[in-house]
Amino acid sequence: MFHTLFSPSVQHSLDVAGIFVFAISGALLAVRKNFDVFGMAVLAEITALGGGLLRDVIIGAVPPAAFTDLGYFSTPLVATALVFFLHPQVERIQGAVNVFDAAGLGLFCVTGTTKAYEYGLGLTASAVLGLGSAVGGGVLRDVLANEVPSLLRWDRDLYAVPAIVGATTAAVCLRFDALNAFTSSLAVLTAFLLRLLAMRYHWRAPRAWNRRSSAEEDVTG
Amino acid sequence: MFHTLFSPSVQHSLDVAGIFVFAISGALLAVRKNFDVFGMAVLAEITALGGGLLRDVIIGAVPPAAFTDLGYFSTPLVATALVFFLHPQVERIQGAVNVFDAAGLGLFCVTGTTKAYEYGLGLTASAVLGLGSAVGGGVLRDVLANEVPSLLRWDRDLYAVPAIVGATTAAVCLRFDALNAFTSSLAVLTAFLLRLLAMRYHWRAPRAWNRRSSAEEDVTG
Amino acid sequence: MFHTLFSPSVQHSLDVAGIFVFAISGALLAVRKNFDVFGMAVLAEITALGGGLLRDVIIGAVPPAAFTDLGYFSTPLVATALVFFLHPQVERIQGAVNVFDAAGLGLFCVTGTTKAYEYGLGLTASAVLGLGSAVGGGVLRDVLANEVPSLLRWDRDLYAVPAIVGATTAAVCLRFDALNAFTSSLAVLTAFLLRLLAMRYHWRAPRAWNRRSSAEEDVTG
Repeated sequence: MFHTLFSPSVQHSLDVAGIFVFAISGALLAVRKNFDVFGMAVLAEITALGGGLLRDVIIGAVPPAAFTDLGYFSTPLVATALVFFLHPQVERIQGAVNVFDAAGLGLFCVTGTTKAYEYGLGLTASAVLGLGSAVGGGVLRDVLANEVPSLLRWDRDLYAVPAIVGATTAAVCLRFDALNAFTSSLAVLTAFLLRLLAMRYHWRAPRAWNRRSSAEEDVTG
Repeated sequence: MFHTLFSPSVQHSLDVAGIFVFAISGALLAVRKNFDVFGMAVLAEITALGGGLLRDVIIGAVPPAAFTDLGYFSTPLVATALVFFLHPQVERIQGAVNVFDAAGLGLFCVTGTTKAYEYGLGLTASAVLGLGSAVGGGVLRDVLANEVPSLLRWDRDLYAVPAIVGATTAAVCLRFDALNAFTSSLAVLTAFLLRLLAMRYHWRAPRAWNRRSSAEEDVTG
Repeated sequence: MFHTLFSPSVQHSLDVAGIFVFAISGALLAVRKNFDVFGMAVLAEITALGGGLLRDVIIGAVPPAAFTDLGYFSTPLVATALVFFLHPQVERIQGAVNVFDAAGLGLFCVTGTTKAYEYGLGLTASAVLGLGSAVGGGVLRDVLANEVPSLLRWDRDLYAVPAIVGATTAAVCLRFDALNAFTSSLAVLTAFLLRLLAMRYHWRAPRAWNRRSSAEEDVTG
C-alpha cells in the first residue's frame, strides 16, 4: 500500500520517466566509450534498472520488478534508439538531461525507501536501500564502462547527498506514519531541488584532512 | 521438466562442457593479466559460473546450481590446472577454444531461458535472463580483470546477437508449447552457427550515428 | 546454533571488530584515490559488508545481516570518520591495520562457512562461501575503485590461501560434527597466522608455467 504513494498509474508513469532519463545517461556514456548499439542498450538497461534490481535482490523481492514489467524493460531500449539516431542533439540538451536525471534521483530515493520498508526492513536500512536504488544504476554503469564511479569522485557535484536527504525524509515520515502523496512529493522535490542547486553552484564534498598534497599525482585515479 | 530438455545426463554433460570452455577463457585472460594461480582459479570460476549465478539469484533459485553441484564447481579448477601447465599450447588452439565458447554461448542462452521460464518469469524476461546467463560470466570476467567488457566493445565480432537469437527462439518455442529436444537443439545450433559466422566474417554492430569523428581519441576506452 | 560459535555477545563484538578493520582499508583506498567523504563512506561500507552481503544473497538469507543490524551498518561510518580526520596517523600504523585485517580475514572465513552450512549448503559450497565472505568485500572495493583486485594480483602476498585453509578447517570440523568454540578458534587462528606469515615472508603464489617472458609488458595490468 505504501509503494503506490500516488495513484498506481501516476506512480508507474513517474517510474518510467525516471527509468528513461537514467537510460539516456547510460546510452550517452556508451557513445562516449565508443560502444556499439548493443553495448549502448546493455548500458542503458543497467543504468536504468540496476539500482532497483540490487534493491529487490537484497530485500528478497524476486523476480525483481525490472523483470516482471515489460514497460520497465522496453523503456531503456527506446532511450537507446533515441541516442543512437540523435546523439549530437541529445548531447546538446545535456543540461535538460541532467535536470531529468535529478528528478529520477529524487523519485527513486523515495520509492526505493518505501519499497524496502514494505518488505519489512528497518527505517535506517530502508533509507540506505532507497539511496542504493537511486545511485546504484549509475555506479554499475561506470563500473561496466571501466571508469571510476562518478558517485565516488571528488571533482563531481554532490549526487549522494540529495538522495540521502530524500531517503531520510521519507524514512522519517514512515516513522511517524505520515507518508502520503503530499509528504512523499515533498521528499522527492527536496532531493530534486538539492541536486539542481548542487549542479548550479558546483557544491562538492570535502576530502580527507591532511592529505599529503596529492591532488596532482592522484587526480588520474 | 523443461530444464532437462535432453535426458538429464546428456544435459549435465553439455552444461559441464560449456562451463569448461568458459573457464578456459577466464584462465587465459588471467594469464594475460599476469595473475597468480589463485587469481586464475577465481577468474575461471566466475567466468564459467557467474552468468548462471546472476540468473539464479534474480529468479530466486537459491542456493544457485553453481553451489549445489560439485561437478559445476570443480570443472573450472580442472580448466585452471590445464591452462596453468599448458598455457602456450592452449593459446595455440585459441581457434578451437573460440568454437567451444560459441557452443557454450548457444547452449547457455537456451537453457537459461528455459530455467527462467520454469521459475515463472514471462517470455521476454526469460529470454533476457537467457541472454544474461550466456554473456554474464564474460562480463564479470572482464570487470574483475579491470577491462572494458568485450561484450560492449565495438571492435569485437558480434557476441550478443547470436545469444539474443537463440534465447528468442527458445522463448517463441515456449510460447507455442513447442520446446522439445529437437527445437531446443535447433535454437542452440542457430546461436552457435551465427556466432561462428560472426567470427569468420568479422560481423560487427554499428555505433551511434553522427558521432563526432572520435574513433581516434576514444579508441582507448 | 552453529553460527554463534562463541557466546552471542562475543561473536557480535568479533564481527564488529572485523567489519571495522575492513572498513579502514576501504576508507584508506578511497583517500588514495582522491574520493570525497561520501566516496570514503561508500567504499568503507562495501569493503566491510560486501562479502557477507554476497554470501547472504546467494544462500537466500534476505534481508542480509548487513541490513538488519544497525551496529554492522554504523561501524564503517565510524571508521570513515577516523580516516577522514586522522588519515596520516592511520596510514602510519598501516602495519597494525594489516594485522587486524588478517584477524578479520580469519574470523570471516570461519563464520561465513558456518553460516552457509546452517542454510543447508554442502561442505564444499560452504567453504567456498566462507572464502567469498572473507575476500568478497576487498574485491568489490577494488572493482569500485577501478583497480585490478589485489586478491588476483601476482605481486601481492598470499591472501586467498589463509582464508581457504581456515574455511576448509571449519568445513572439516563441521563434517565430523566437531565444530565448537575451541576448534573454530583454532581455525580462525590458523588463517590469521598464515596470513601474518605470508606478509612477513612475502609468500607468493606461482603464475602459469611457460609464459612468454611477459613480466615486463604485462605488469601494467
